[in-house]
Amino acid sequence: MSGFRATVLTLYPEMFPGPLGLSLSGRALDRGDWSLDVANIRDAATDRHRSVDDTPSGGGPGMVMRADVVARAIDTVSPADDPRPRLYMSPRGRRLDQRLVRDLAAGPGVVILCGRFEGLDERVIEGRGLIEVSIGDYVLSGGELAAQVTLDAVVRLLPGVMGKIESGSEESFEAGLLEYPQYTRPQVWEGREIPEILTSGDHGRIRAWRRAEAERITRERRPDLWDAYRAGTDGTT
Amino acid sequence: MSGFRATVLTLYPEMFPGPLGLSLSGRALDRGDWSLDVANIRDAATDRHRSVDDTPSGGGPGMVMRADVVARAIDTVSPADDPRPRLYMSPRGRRLDQRLVRDLAAGPGVVILCGRFEGLDERVIEGRGLIEVSIGDYVLSGGELAAQVTLDAVVRLLPGVMGKIESGSEESFEAGLLEYPQYTRPQVWEGREIPEILTSGDHGRIRAWRRAEAERITRERRPDLWDAYRAGTDGTT
Repeated sequence: MSGFRATVLTLYPEMFPGPLGLSLSGRALDRGDWSLDVANIRDAATDRHRSVDDTPSGGGPGMVMRADVVARAIDTVSPADDPRPRLYMSPRGRRLDQRLVRDLAAGPGVVILCGRFEGLDERVIEGRGLIEVSIGDYVLSGGELAAQVTLDAVVRLLPGVMGKIESGSEESFEAGLLEYPQYTRPQVWEGREIPEILTSGDHGRIRAWRRAEAERITRERRPDLWDAYRAGTDGTT
Repeated sequence: MSGFRATVLTLYPEMFPGPLGLSLSGRALDRGDWSLDVANIRDAATDRHRSVDDTPSGGGPGMVMRADVVARAIDTVSPADDPRPRLYMSPRGRRLDQRLVRDLAAGPGVVILCGRFEGLDERVIEGRGLIEVSIGDYVLSGGELAAQVTLDAVVRLLPGVMGKIESGSEESFEAGLLEYPQYTRPQVWEGREIPEILTSGDHGRIRAWRRAEAERITRERRPDLWDAYRAGTDGTT
């Protein structure tokens, strides 16, 4: 099998595959479109307490994951010549966006380290070339859900996974716009009608209306995306 | 029990509690610090095929979740006078950040609708006052992982959940800065030493070093956060 290879390092291997074992990503896993190996970081501990963490140098709350233990865990699943990028899920990281998702999906796979506790010894980030990636500006209890989010986003872009279903939301994000409003039957619901233009059968006008709505929503809700979109489409800025 | 009440509406109830049933959030669930009810949207379908979706008005790929079915599912778990906010996980939404997480954690609970397919009929968003929330600028196969991320972030802030462990990453985000580097034993690892200052025992200098490092990392990695931080601390815009 030559599919996308994901390896996850975690202190909670029982969290995997979790939601990834169902629905779109689960079916793709069953078909072999991607593979998922999960390793317990604790297996890399060497003392009799199987310690993976220690108190922060310089004091402070919480515990820090040890460089030696984590490096040993990484080396076991990902040799020095592993072509796969090694991610460390962290709020300090580069923010995950659809471009990074696409880049990852085009590659051979990914190794993802999930943190817990207060943090990870900085030296192993440098020593093993970990790429810090954040799924958003909020604090989670660990990196496991962040890893699953990353994998879900990547897996749906792998060849064969979505089949013939071309995703409009995907296209919308690719173009740098948020998605236009969607409607379906019933024609009238609680006195609210589907916009007349959508049932007109005039595909040119429908396309123009959707574009205008996507632009309006993006402008109203996400001025940052709107500015980037305008810079990209008409060359201003 | 008067804890935080979460209700999730999904087409994949078997994805819950998933990772939320383990570790910090799982222990809090077992203790009753919060509760989680999961309802299957399909139970609100009325035809013999139990349809929840239909083709988009105006054409296009994918399927759209029906307003009537989704409204019925919401009404079953969340009456009109439900004080809890109703979220719809969507890439078009307000971005989840630590401030929104804090606001949610301070409230009575949350109702979260998880989408699948191409989208949701716009009329039910208006008709049921759904707040669209996005965990980041990427496309997932559904809202379930986004709901779990939201709940994980919220639950760790509920009274009693983290106990005495005051989180430094939390403090760091609260102050608008990314976290400073962490280190722990061993003192030397693969020739890399812990910065000398951290083992000096001089707590004033350690505090100043950490602050400077948090500022440096924020400035380098997230100019947007850095600008907001500076605007907040010294009054310059």
